[in-house]
Amino acid sequence: MKLILAVVQDKDANRLVDALGDKDFKSTKLSSTGGFLKEGNTTLMIGCKDDQVDQALEIIKENCSHREQMVAPISPMGGNADSYIPKPVKVEVGGATVFVLPVDSFHQF
Amino acid sequence: MKLILAVVQDKDANRLVDALGDKDFKSTKLSSTGGFLKEGNTTLMIGCKDDQVDQALEIIKENCSHREQMVAPISPMGGNADSYIPKPVKVEVGGATVFVLPVDSFHQF
Amino acid sequence: MKLILAVVQDKDANRLVDALGDKDFKSTKLSSTGGFLKEGNTTLMIGCKDDQVDQALEIIKENCSHREQMVAPISPMGGNADSYIPKPVKVEVGGATVFVLPVDSFHQF
Ligand code: NI
Ligand code: NI
Ligand code: NI
Repeated sequence: MKLILAVVQDKDANRLVDALGDKDFKSTKLSSTGGFLKEGNTTLMIGCKDDQVDQALEIIKENCSHREQMVAPISPMGGNADSYIPKPVKVEVGGATVFVLPVDSFHQF
Repeated sequence: MKLILAVVQDKDANRLVDALGDKDFKSTKLSSTGGFLKEGNTTLMIGCKDDQVDQALEIIKENCSHREQMVAPISPMGGNADSYIPKPVKVEVGGATVFVLPVDSFHQF
Repeated sequence: MKLILAVVQDKDANRLVDALGDKDFKSTKLSSTGGFLKEGNTTLMIGCKDDQVDQALEIIKENCSHREQMVAPISPMGGNADSYIPKPVKVEVGGATVFVLPVDSFHQF
């Protein structure tokens, strides 16, 4: 048994929980802020068997990897939106910091 | 030294903290949601000596076990409460998911 | 690799995060309440290399140790503030409860 602690961005958390659930991984969300990632992150606790760790890590990687997105900037308030074409800007999103912890024993009551 | 992480239902959390405190176990509550249990759960961190783990698990089991409760359904809004006897319904409550983690060292400042 | 879980008072948490950051330690805050310390505490997760644990503990000790402070009591509502000199009272603040956990593996995506 292992306990995986994954710190991910809020925006990726629900997709990750769903993707983990599709493969029968149960997870619990802890609210967290700052530090490893920019503001607005979530820490997921995922319990799994030793031989499922690689699969769980793969799912985290697929759903939360650090990546760049092109985002259309918001038109300035009161600006004339017709007068210019806003250029999309590149922003960095996602990323996951993951600790795999050994577990002495696991119980369900 | 061990660190026990127990995910329990919100409604059981305070009773558990009290029961643990009665036996001199200190615990810290982390707010958590979803996953191992239905919405509205709490993750408790409990630090204890190796030979106290069984006692702590027993207290968690006594206070948070999965169980069924008979609940009187709420009368429908605007219904005539005299006109029928509401049947109590069975609901599942409680449950605990518990990880016992090894601890390298413990410090208090 | 180790994972340090430090439960500290809310009022000390931001100073600790800054002090850790100055030495390139990254941390994530989990909201927590009660138990190890009085109400209003924060649990910090700090990941670090084995040979950095002592330095991290030293920073926690410097910023969060249990200590006594002299605090000017608030004048009673509607009281005549001129009529007496309020005596400062001693209050206990701070304190940290710290678990150093072994880590099987660490990943960043
Ligand atoms: Ni980048
Ligand atoms: Ni059942
Ligand atoms: Ni004292």
